[in-house]
Amino acid sequence: MSKLPNITTSIFSVMSQLANQHGAINLSQGFPNFPEDERLLQISERIIRENIHQYTPMAGLPSLLEKIANQTLKQYGRKINTTTELLITAGATQGVFTAINTFVNQGDEVLILDPSYDSYEPSVLVAGGKPVRVSLNDDYTPNFNRIESAISAKTKMIVINNPHNPTGRIWTEQDFEALETILEKHPQILILGDEVYEYITFSQPHISFNTRPKLVERTIIASSFGKSLHVTGWKVGYLIAPENLMYEMKKVHQFLVFSVNSFSQHVISEYLDVVNFSEVSKMYQRKRDLFQNLIKNSRFELMPCDGTYFQVVNYNQISNKNDVDFAKELIVNHGVASIPISVFYNDNTDRHMLRFCFAKTDETLIAAAEKLNKL
Amino acid sequence: MSKLPNITTSIFSVMSQLANQHGAINLSQGFPNFPEDERLLQISERIIRENIHQYTPMAGLPSLLEKIANQTLKQYGRKINTTTELLITAGATQGVFTAINTFVNQGDEVLILDPSYDSYEPSVLVAGGKPVRVSLNDDYTPNFNRIESAISAKTKMIVINNPHNPTGRIWTEQDFEALETILEKHPQILILGDEVYEYITFSQPHISFNTRPKLVERTIIASSFGKSLHVTGWKVGYLIAPENLMYEMKKVHQFLVFSVNSFSQHVISEYLDVVNFSEVSKMYQRKRDLFQNLIKNSRFELMPCDGTYFQVVNYNQISNKNDVDFAKELIVNHGVASIPISVFYNDNTDRHMLRFCFAKTDETLIAAAEKLNKL
Ligand SMILES: CSCCC(=O)C(=O)O
Ligand SMILES: CSCCC(=O)C(=O)O
Repeated sequence: MSKLPNITTSIFSVMSQLANQHGAINLSQGFPNFPEDERLLQISERIIRENIHQYTPMAGLPSLLEKIANQTLKQYGRKINTTTELLITAGATQGVFTAINTFVNQGDEVLILDPSYDSYEPSVLVAGGKPVRVSLNDDYTPNFNRIESAISAKTKMIVINNPHNPTGRIWTEQDFEALETILEKHPQILILGDEVYEYITFSQPHISFNTRPKLVERTIIASSFGKSLHVTGWKVGYLIAPENLMYEMKKVHQFLVFSVNSFSQHVISEYLDVVNFSEVSKMYQRKRDLFQNLIKNSRFELMPCDGTYFQVVNYNQISNKNDVDFAKELIVNHGVASIPISVFYNDNTDRHMLRFCFAKTDETLIAAAEKLNKL
Repeated sequence: MSKLPNITTSIFSVMSQLANQHGAINLSQGFPNFPEDERLLQISERIIRENIHQYTPMAGLPSLLEKIANQTLKQYGRKINTTTELLITAGATQGVFTAINTFVNQGDEVLILDPSYDSYEPSVLVAGGKPVRVSLNDDYTPNFNRIESAISAKTKMIVINNPHNPTGRIWTEQDFEALETILEKHPQILILGDEVYEYITFSQPHISFNTRPKLVERTIIASSFGKSLHVTGWKVGYLIAPENLMYEMKKVHQFLVFSVNSFSQHVISEYLDVVNFSEVSKMYQRKRDLFQNLIKNSRFELMPCDGTYFQVVNYNQISNKNDVDFAKELIVNHGVASIPISVFYNDNTDRHMLRFCFAKTDETLIAAAEKLNKL
């Protein structure tokens, strides 16, 4: 008997493989293809010789915990206790899985917005919980009537990904207020806030759960250095949570993975002294604008993109194929790989939408746009 | 409600911390304190510049999978399919957790020998399963009557750690035959074989599940590079399993962690071309012999050590304290940190035994022995 009977290979693996196979420009799986920061590489070269290759402490390298707490204080004004409220994870995916598998018991319900990043639902299923999908509005903003109606006595957790992958939408002040009003009536519901794109927002400022006093005492925040430091392969992320929740998550973490890659933790710890997170948003805003300008006269229609490094487009004017078939055609016949949005929906709703990753060199974006403009 | 109500901080963290606090020689948590191989560091320095910092494929870096399969063929004569039977994990701990949480459902029983490494039982509890402890014989060899009696219709898995942490015992040909006879009658029982110390054995050769045709079709083998390459902080391990089992584990793995640290995978992949695993056993055999000789005239009594880098001793002649209190006293008053064996028993049986890690420089072992000889 399988715990995940409906799961096959993740769409990110499928599309990246197909892209490689056909030599297509890969705007599918979210990862940068530009060189790492020279300062990061120099720290890395030095650190190699510094005798740092054995286990770090279970909760993470102390200096890295300090740097994260300082950054959270600077960015959000929230003082985190590094000993009791912070945990380094092997990427945000492991953080999300750990949070869910710590708190979700057999039969517990977890609200997951639809569409959503693809790891939440399987994590709930492995825990024996029941994912309850709540559709976003047609413009990908949250629908609070639907959220409220979906709550039951069994609801244990709601997962909120902000900025939102795959849609690039971010939550407004009004969104947070609406959530606060609803959750006031349901003190038992935990929030899992996936904020891995917190440093990649454009038109409006990102509002973190770190800044919501009414919610933060029941919120587990998952974040990641892969996205903000352009090292998705390093698999270093972290969880922030109040002490009572963190205490339980550390118990699971210590037997799930024990500790996280020591080299990467040491390098990131030093690199955080020199990196400027506000540069990250600026850099990606420029790339978003470039990509949008390059294809604005194509037959692809651009959706709003307020954050993340993903641009959603519809292809209503181009094809009647479903999005998975069209995405494959786009790779095989036109040399550009994307992610079909239907894979993020529980029932694989096809809305003729694709997601392009613009965390790429300008040359790559220009070459991809040239191909897209031909359709 | 906690899934792990009885778990506190792991003994390895507690003892390492206490050792640091008191400036004691740390023979507690298992990790080497000697320098890494110069060839490993040189590969590392070069790899940093090689543009390898984004996600590797979900199941692992293809070149690393190839190298592992070659090594398994060379060592055990078993040909592994790299696409369907192999998975890189963020350390063996994640491998063990993934195997258990893929196959153990609510109410399933898992046989765990007693004493045992401390991560198996919590992994079973997180999965909602029921750990069933089976005591080893007094000399730490397996007792097959007890194993057979412990099997029920609900038994889903048996965990076998060989070479065995903490006792340093390894399984004989007769042990495997006895297990084969029992399991023949119970085709539903899976084996989780934790072989992380496979390359650290002395008097007798290590027998891997890879060489047991009657068992291998139901066995998941967990292994680790941390132990054999002296980089415990890198957290790179792997699982080997037949395709039908691996298929299910990959589904969980892809949403538990997705992929493993890219830098470490690249370095290990190249390093496997030059490393000679038979040197590892020789090196540790020399250290075991050194440590045993250094304290053989002390009042600590040496237990047999056939594998792993751990030496178990009893202190019957020295103190009546329980082993946790005595281990603390040994740190605080005598400057040597060890692990009390009771923590590996389900009911914390105190048999006046301590575990010393001898994966240390000769100087460290000599300095520790000098202190131990004074007791
Ligand atoms: C973990 S692989 C997926 C990367 C990613 O976050 C995305 O492409 O959405
Ligand atoms: C994961 S920390 C424990 C290291 C180890 O294997 C041991 O000391 O037994």
